[in-house]
Amino acid sequence: MLEKINSPQELRSLDVDQLQPLADELRTFIINTLATHPGHLASSLGTVELTLALHYVFNTPDDRIVWDVGHQSYAHKIITGRRDRFDTIRTYGGLSGFPRRDESSYDAFGTGHSSTSISAALGMATASKLQGNTSRQHIAVIGDGSLTGGEAFEALNNVGDSKANILMVLNDNGISIDKAVGGLDSYLTKLTASSRYNRLKDEVWSRLSGDRPGAKTHHRSRSLMQKLTLTAKTALLGGSNLFESLGIRYFGPIDGHDIPHLVEMLSKLRQLPGPKLLHVITVKGKGLTTAEQNPVVYHAPGLYNAQTGRQIKNSNAGGPIKYQDVFGRTIIELANANPKIVGITPAMATGCSLNLMMEALPERTFDVGIAEQHAVTFAAGLAAQGMVPFCNIYSSFAQRAYDQIIHDVALQRLPVVMCLDRAGLVGDDGPTHHGVFDIAALRSIPNLIIAAPLNEHELRNMMYTAQMADSGAWVIRYPRGCGVLADWHNTMEQLVIGRGRCIRQGSDAAIVAIGHSGNDALAAADKLEQEGRSVAVYDMRFVKPLDYRLLDEIAKAGFQRIGTVEDGIKAGGFGSAIIEYFAAKHPEVLAHTTVLGIPDSFVTHGPVATLKRDCGIDADSIAAAIR
Amino acid sequence: MLEKINSPQELRSLDVDQLQPLADELRTFIINTLATHPGHLASSLGTVELTLALHYVFNTPDDRIVWDVGHQSYAHKIITGRRDRFDTIRTYGGLSGFPRRDESSYDAFGTGHSSTSISAALGMATASKLQGNTSRQHIAVIGDGSLTGGEAFEALNNVGDSKANILMVLNDNGISIDKAVGGLDSYLTKLTASSRYNRLKDEVWSRLSGDRPGAKTHHRSRSLMQKLTLTAKTALLGGSNLFESLGIRYFGPIDGHDIPHLVEMLSKLRQLPGPKLLHVITVKGKGLTTAEQNPVVYHAPGLYNAQTGRQIKNSNAGGPIKYQDVFGRTIIELANANPKIVGITPAMATGCSLNLMMEALPERTFDVGIAEQHAVTFAAGLAAQGMVPFCNIYSSFAQRAYDQIIHDVALQRLPVVMCLDRAGLVGDDGPTHHGVFDIAALRSIPNLIIAAPLNEHELRNMMYTAQMADSGAWVIRYPRGCGVLADWHNTMEQLVIGRGRCIRQGSDAAIVAIGHSGNDALAAADKLEQEGRSVAVYDMRFVKPLDYRLLDEIAKAGFQRIGTVEDGIKAGGFGSAIIEYFAAKHPEVLAHTTVLGIPDSFVTHGPVATLKRDCGIDADSIAAAIR
Repeated sequence: MLEKINSPQELRSLDVDQLQPLADELRTFIINTLATHPGHLASSLGTVELTLALHYVFNTPDDRIVWDVGHQSYAHKIITGRRDRFDTIRTYGGLSGFPRRDESSYDAFGTGHSSTSISAALGMATASKLQGNTSRQHIAVIGDGSLTGGEAFEALNNVGDSKANILMVLNDNGISIDKAVGGLDSYLTKLTASSRYNRLKDEVWSRLSGDRPGAKTHHRSRSLMQKLTLTAKTALLGGSNLFESLGIRYFGPIDGHDIPHLVEMLSKLRQLPGPKLLHVITVKGKGLTTAEQNPVVYHAPGLYNAQTGRQIKNSNAGGPIKYQDVFGRTIIELANANPKIVGITPAMATGCSLNLMMEALPERTFDVGIAEQHAVTFAAGLAAQGMVPFCNIYSSFAQRAYDQIIHDVALQRLPVVMCLDRAGLVGDDGPTHHGVFDIAALRSIPNLIIAAPLNEHELRNMMYTAQMADSGAWVIRYPRGCGVLADWHNTMEQLVIGRGRCIRQGSDAAIVAIGHSGNDALAAADKLEQEGRSVAVYDMRFVKPLDYRLLDEIAKAGFQRIGTVEDGIKAGGFGSAIIEYFAAKHPEVLAHTTVLGIPDSFVTHGPVATLKRDCGIDADSIAAAIR
Repeated sequence: MLEKINSPQELRSLDVDQLQPLADELRTFIINTLATHPGHLASSLGTVELTLALHYVFNTPDDRIVWDVGHQSYAHKIITGRRDRFDTIRTYGGLSGFPRRDESSYDAFGTGHSSTSISAALGMATASKLQGNTSRQHIAVIGDGSLTGGEAFEALNNVGDSKANILMVLNDNGISIDKAVGGLDSYLTKLTASSRYNRLKDEVWSRLSGDRPGAKTHHRSRSLMQKLTLTAKTALLGGSNLFESLGIRYFGPIDGHDIPHLVEMLSKLRQLPGPKLLHVITVKGKGLTTAEQNPVVYHAPGLYNAQTGRQIKNSNAGGPIKYQDVFGRTIIELANANPKIVGITPAMATGCSLNLMMEALPERTFDVGIAEQHAVTFAAGLAAQGMVPFCNIYSSFAQRAYDQIIHDVALQRLPVVMCLDRAGLVGDDGPTHHGVFDIAALRSIPNLIIAAPLNEHELRNMMYTAQMADSGAWVIRYPRGCGVLADWHNTMEQLVIGRGRCIRQGSDAAIVAIGHSGNDALAAADKLEQEGRSVAVYDMRFVKPLDYRLLDEIAKAGFQRIGTVEDGIKAGGFGSAIIEYFAAKHPEVLAHTTVLGIPDSFVTHGPVATLKRDCGIDADSIAAAIR
């Protein structure tokens, strides 16, 4: 049946009772495809029925659906004309892993970062209202994890005032990427278990027991059952709830895997003007037992066996480990020696390996939910009271905390250590996730120390140095993926803040690099040596403070060519800082100085090596530039 | 009595019934001082009793108070040893208008931007808990307006999970700077009017009627009465509320001007471990009739008569009007001609003069609350649906929306026009409010057009050009305060995007300026001309795209000296962009090129002219640099 669905038009010509078999096919198609073409599995499995029901009831693309974050949009992509290309997802030149306006008219708004969907849908709904279109519906599908992001609350606060046609579908699975945390999640659990239960329980229980048509294929939902059985233990919440507090009509909770019920509810809500919220309970990873049992691991499991669901591990035995694991293991080592150290992350505990510290030192480790702004100010508060917080945020998500880094950390010179994982090009996730703006955005901030490690030992040395007494506010940026050393575990050494170093001698040319890019610089120098060119490589270690003494030395060494290399955007970045200094002190070297970095455009998704080549910052490009 | 209070220690030696007379004295002191030394009046008048009660009950500075935003902290400053210097508030070298850690040990955490207090206090409380200090209390005083900021919600979500000693005092006056908006404010009003009323009404009414000791000096609070009398009309909210939904123990609402009651409640809450929230109703502007009647105007009224409360207007008759008013009047003019235009601001309607459009075109103007992130994505949603949103945010507050500008606007090339008011040095508000990072932070973002007007006509021309069909994503940055022209109202002209211009001919030297700094450049050129030096001035108009053709021309013109000027931070800024281009194409000119801008440190508060001199960007400094 799936093969005949090339657009939602064809979907809408089916009978309602044909939708569940279609959902089963669609789910199998996703499981089979992603087994060999890695992507975000568990989120999309959880929303198969919801996706079909939404496109069945609403007149897409004229009605607009905004998928918060977008991990859950794969079924949407498949039934909106992208089935044939689905096996290209997240590959270079292929489909994006996220909704993109330039990919399909069904992708009403691009996403990638969390908690934007209500704002965007409210904007669209307001536009339709102003344009006199009172029938168009605007739908934000948002997870319970995303709802903890402050922007979602700002939007909810605004929605209540609006009379625009907006439907928020709260996709509640108790999981963000890691387990959802905070008062809101407890609340949603209580809400699900509350008085509304009385109305719903017979219906839901009977469906879970399989004695209702169309329900037999459902796995018994542990999450849903847990929520329902909490009733006896929790206080009833009365006639009002958090959403109604904010002036938003609340409906639900309903089973997000029951298509007939979803269709019925959505059809009614479609007729209801103004803002409303439908609370839907889904099971992340639905339909693949391993994923249901471990939705955190199966959020993006990599390769797996489509039948058993078992992961197929890349055999990287003996090779370098990931930078994130170097961070995760090193912070425990440091925290064991220094009782002031605490670890903080906004919902990236597994992704940044702070989950290791969470297990080892639970009292001193904080997952604050999807809440980058709060994470940084919370860290500043801890630092104001004598602690040394390491706050780990992916570089592109740290953009959310730009103001807090200025206003709460740097201005007050508080010893917060911001660790920016996933800095530089991240590969398959593409332009929303590349961590390419951090250097340019942060180096203009006074008082900050900005460091980037060449390799695993350097990362450890930087973390060690950053936690020394009164060393100020730090940013340590390092990339996604593996390091370069066979043995990551060195004896940590204190670095001199703002001091770079020569890591390869040479006399004809110099490459001045920052962070992991230094490895590409070394490879380029090796290539050039084979051609008889003697090339020095400098690892500046610090973007800020810049090592002016070392730059003086480089400027005076008589190199015929100098190249700077970074895996960040060129405009205003690391190379720009060096150019600023050379312009002021050594303008004579600028005639033979070249800045290498990301050019002034957003970088697509694909393998990091390919993207580096495109941006002119792989070893070959560096060698060519020096030549 | 006030003269004897040099610290909270002395305050705590008083009897409770001495506190109200002291409050009256304190209020009079604030009113009298600010009448001739302008500052944030109405917020501080509203929290006099609350401030005394807090310092009376809690053992400050060992117990920590964080004042959200900080406008309301004047009484706090006066009774914590800064009374004698209070008349220096917001003056150069004098007291800051906000709490600052380096000003007093009683200022536990610096503020200025909204919605950070709960995060910071939770960080401190968590630190105390880890340090084994179970008795210390950590207090966040936050207004109902600030509570709409997403970061506050992120923190609330996290607080519920914590067992740390944190007390949130919700200072509910129904006003942020403009009137508070959104579902939350309606909710607080309902909450105040709800079942709790039954317990409180007799007590509160009798106090309002003045038949209770210590209450006679109270003005009858219209706001409180309105809230209370809503009871009959609104549904009861039952046993739970929004805060309790999030796992936070809720107390109140209580009258924030009743010191004995405040002292009693706070004393009880001090004994209660863990997180809790006290809802306090206050009257913004309390004690000065004009301020109570018009708290928006009296937020920061400038000079006024201390007896009558009447404002003393600066006579600027016939002089240039404020940039914000040029914006406010021009957007109406444009919106009348172009039905696609809408106006958006996150709670700065009066400050940016979008209130003019709000009156003229209410359907098309949106104050979304203190919600910078939402404001920008909401604008992007409107733009995705064919509208042309002008989103006005102060430059320093736009730091909160840095990620949304990248992720929702620029990446999708949506025609949002970001108008950044208060760009450059803002003067008396100081380092938290200077808009000095925008150029450096934004010019690294692909697809953005970044413009800055030399004067009022240019601002109008830029706004006119930005709203033309498909002109892309714009940033227009302009300063606080007045323009430079006698007649601001020109016939608007379309500019060529990315095209600068020569505004003063000269042959010896060139000053390359951006935005309002061009006026200082012109003044410098005039000074230099008197010394016989012929100096050209260029107004680049656009930071991005840069006018490379014009820069080629400048580089080839044979100037003996070239200076760039901007009122933003130098590292990575406008001058840096020019240096990058010159380094790539005209390295020979860099030996005689100088970049003028804000150096790499936070700039204090004081008159803009003084701060410009300190930073080396006033006309004299520019002239000296060219010399």
